[in-house]
Amino acid sequence: MSKVQPRVLKGFRDYLPSKMIPRQKMLGSIEQTFQRFGFVPLMTPALEYLDILTGKYGDEGETLLYRFQDQGDRDVALRYDLTVPLARVVAQYPEITLPFRRYQIAPVWRAEKPARGRFREFFQCDGDIVGSRDMVSDAELVQLACELITALGVERFVVRLNNRKVLSGLMAELGVEAGQPEMGVLRTIDKLPKIGEEKTTALLKEENGLDASQVERIFRFLRIEGGAREILDQVQPTFPEGSVGRQGCDELREVFGILDTVGLGGKAELDLSIARGLNYYTGTIYEAFLNDLPGYGAVMGGGRYDELIGVFKGQDIPGVGISLGIDRLLEGLVELKLLDEAASVAPVLVSIFGRETAAYSVKVATTLRSGGIGCELFPSYAKLGKQFRQAERCGQRWVVVAGTDEESKNEVGVKDLETGKQETVALDGLVGYLAARLDGACP
Amino acid sequence: MSKVQPRVLKGFRDYLPSKMIPRQKMLGSIEQTFQRFGFVPLMTPALEYLDILTGKYGDEGETLLYRFQDQGDRDVALRYDLTVPLARVVAQYPEITLPFRRYQIAPVWRAEKPARGRFREFFQCDGDIVGSRDMVSDAELVQLACELITALGVERFVVRLNNRKVLSGLMAELGVEAGQPEMGVLRTIDKLPKIGEEKTTALLKEENGLDASQVERIFRFLRIEGGAREILDQVQPTFPEGSVGRQGCDELREVFGILDTVGLGGKAELDLSIARGLNYYTGTIYEAFLNDLPGYGAVMGGGRYDELIGVFKGQDIPGVGISLGIDRLLEGLVELKLLDEAASVAPVLVSIFGRETAAYSVKVATTLRSGGIGCELFPSYAKLGKQFRQAERCGQRWVVVAGTDEESKNEVGVKDLETGKQETVALDGLVGYLAARLDGACP
Repeated sequence: MSKVQPRVLKGFRDYLPSKMIPRQKMLGSIEQTFQRFGFVPLMTPALEYLDILTGKYGDEGETLLYRFQDQGDRDVALRYDLTVPLARVVAQYPEITLPFRRYQIAPVWRAEKPARGRFREFFQCDGDIVGSRDMVSDAELVQLACELITALGVERFVVRLNNRKVLSGLMAELGVEAGQPEMGVLRTIDKLPKIGEEKTTALLKEENGLDASQVERIFRFLRIEGGAREILDQVQPTFPEGSVGRQGCDELREVFGILDTVGLGGKAELDLSIARGLNYYTGTIYEAFLNDLPGYGAVMGGGRYDELIGVFKGQDIPGVGISLGIDRLLEGLVELKLLDEAASVAPVLVSIFGRETAAYSVKVATTLRSGGIGCELFPSYAKLGKQFRQAERCGQRWVVVAGTDEESKNEVGVKDLETGKQETVALDGLVGYLAARLDGACP
Repeated sequence: MSKVQPRVLKGFRDYLPSKMIPRQKMLGSIEQTFQRFGFVPLMTPALEYLDILTGKYGDEGETLLYRFQDQGDRDVALRYDLTVPLARVVAQYPEITLPFRRYQIAPVWRAEKPARGRFREFFQCDGDIVGSRDMVSDAELVQLACELITALGVERFVVRLNNRKVLSGLMAELGVEAGQPEMGVLRTIDKLPKIGEEKTTALLKEENGLDASQVERIFRFLRIEGGAREILDQVQPTFPEGSVGRQGCDELREVFGILDTVGLGGKAELDLSIARGLNYYTGTIYEAFLNDLPGYGAVMGGGRYDELIGVFKGQDIPGVGISLGIDRLLEGLVELKLLDEAASVAPVLVSIFGRETAAYSVKVATTLRSGGIGCELFPSYAKLGKQFRQAERCGQRWVVVAGTDEESKNEVGVKDLETGKQETVALDGLVGYLAARLDGACP
């Protein structure tokens, strides 16, 4: 066997333990919140028939599919997102009855040009309610967004809401055609927070073909400020009776009405400049931001898409969802010091003097674990110095020492690496001794 | 967009919520146990460079790799197991220092002919200690196996231990050459519990070229029974001083000595017929069985492999590991009624009368969740009968009813679908009312 250079493909990543440990804490909290809201877990295969995936992502998306022929000459591809598999599942299984709410946390693959923050394999975390057109489900998703963030320990955040129908109403007023032309303008508007008014103006004129008065009307619209009701009172009368714009305003009123009832009025804001880049949204759209990381971009977002899920059934099935940027969220939480990178899941290392005392060290480790204290038993008869160095490197504060002396007295030594102090503790008092010091920090 | 038949590839599976819910409970317990033993999580990409994977699985394995050329004409393949990625990580990152213990739960892909219980995408759950040759780590893995099973609620199980060196000693005595011929005989022995003595005898003669006296010697050896020490006292003297067989016996004595100290003598048995089919084991081997499912096969197994992990470093790095059969274990736990298939994660459904009372229903759901009771809010203004039917179908026992009457009095109706009784409860007493009835069953 020749020596092969160990390496990963460009755009792919290993998650070493120091990243995985906080990541799993975060995902554990996210799953718990989803379940508290009654969202059930779903898992679908990584590989799908190619024809399940093609035609769903537009030309640009298609070129990014990892596709190949398998050993049976079937055309297959790695999944590109979690939404098309959800649409397939809803169409395929009669036991899935609507309305249906599920969450899924899984990797997806896109052969994009890798860049800072853009990978070819990355995790999506999606929650969706399928089969309801009623605004109570839109409100539920916004409430879920707030709870997901709150459960992660973030107090200062905001969810910015808008409605595609309101934006469509504005586009209709400006004479921008529905479909591609409208989507083009909305994508440009979506860039406003990143690129500023001047560049947005230039793009709206050059790329979207709008004239100065149209651009001015857009900015006048986007600058409307105030509470949700104030904004809606200003905007709604500008749309004709029975128009899509009016309907969007009514939908927003209903969502904000529900959110107010549960005291989320302060966390959810109407922001007419939220547009979302994806073309499939049909109603409510929203994005969540962390106040203490200004300029960081949205950590989660979503909205209503009433024409996507029915693709395999050949009929419209309404849906509303949330999508979390797992990596972005994790980075944010680490930056806010709400999660720490860590190299260990067990706060205690039980060292081993040598072969003769190995069984006693195992007994000590077993005592700790039975008492609910996670610990690592050093797995070889190495020099004690090496064992201590590993504990330091992994951030384990306590090292338990158990030599022949200690064994003969049924005792152990406990060294606190932070203070450098070592104390002798009776084995049957060890759990209590460490539990008091760990202060609920043990996993 | 033409209508595409919703379907999954042969050998691939969707995990619908009813399967995913017990599966995640099981995996949660497994992860907790790994972490209590100080195993840290690791994640590696699904796709690897082809040359990372080739040459590691033998000719038969190679043909089962899902391989293709990506958009950059790189030869890539989906990972085939979690051991080669572990070997790559250990070689690639200087911050991973030995000894290193990690676990990984992830899908792998093999283009095998699908059969009952054999899939092309399946999950592996591996835990390994890398970098120690000392038997304390072998004992730790066996102890971990016992804890993993115990934590899942199984009381009656057995871990059967053996050592490849002991089997190699026997093969040397019989004049069977090391390498392929020896592995052939061991693979045949491994089939004994499945195919019986007669067929095993036939295979040993026909496929492995052994004569009657050699076969008889093997069966005499395999029939040695008793406690671990009794068996070793009989077997050890048959091997020459300083031979590999003797060394294997010493290793087993050391492992059993440690296990006895922590009271696992009754759970771990020496079974000379345990051979394990994989060729890379070099010492301790073991398999775990559930006593109440006789004939069910092993639910986890593993052993020591001292020549595998160093493949990318061009040096031997010792390792010892455990591998759990996730799907098999889950089926077993459901059969033993230790886990239930379930269609819901939230025990309570909050129904909605209609648009006018939606906000009140949201308030009721929020009250429950804040009180630690998971609940699903019916997401649309459907007929109440439909809402009740969904609760029944999903196994939700309690349905909360909140109409205009209830709202005006700040009350709710709580219907117990099991007894059919409905009671009126004040909203501020609802959490206490349901918590008493849920009896800790809420997620």
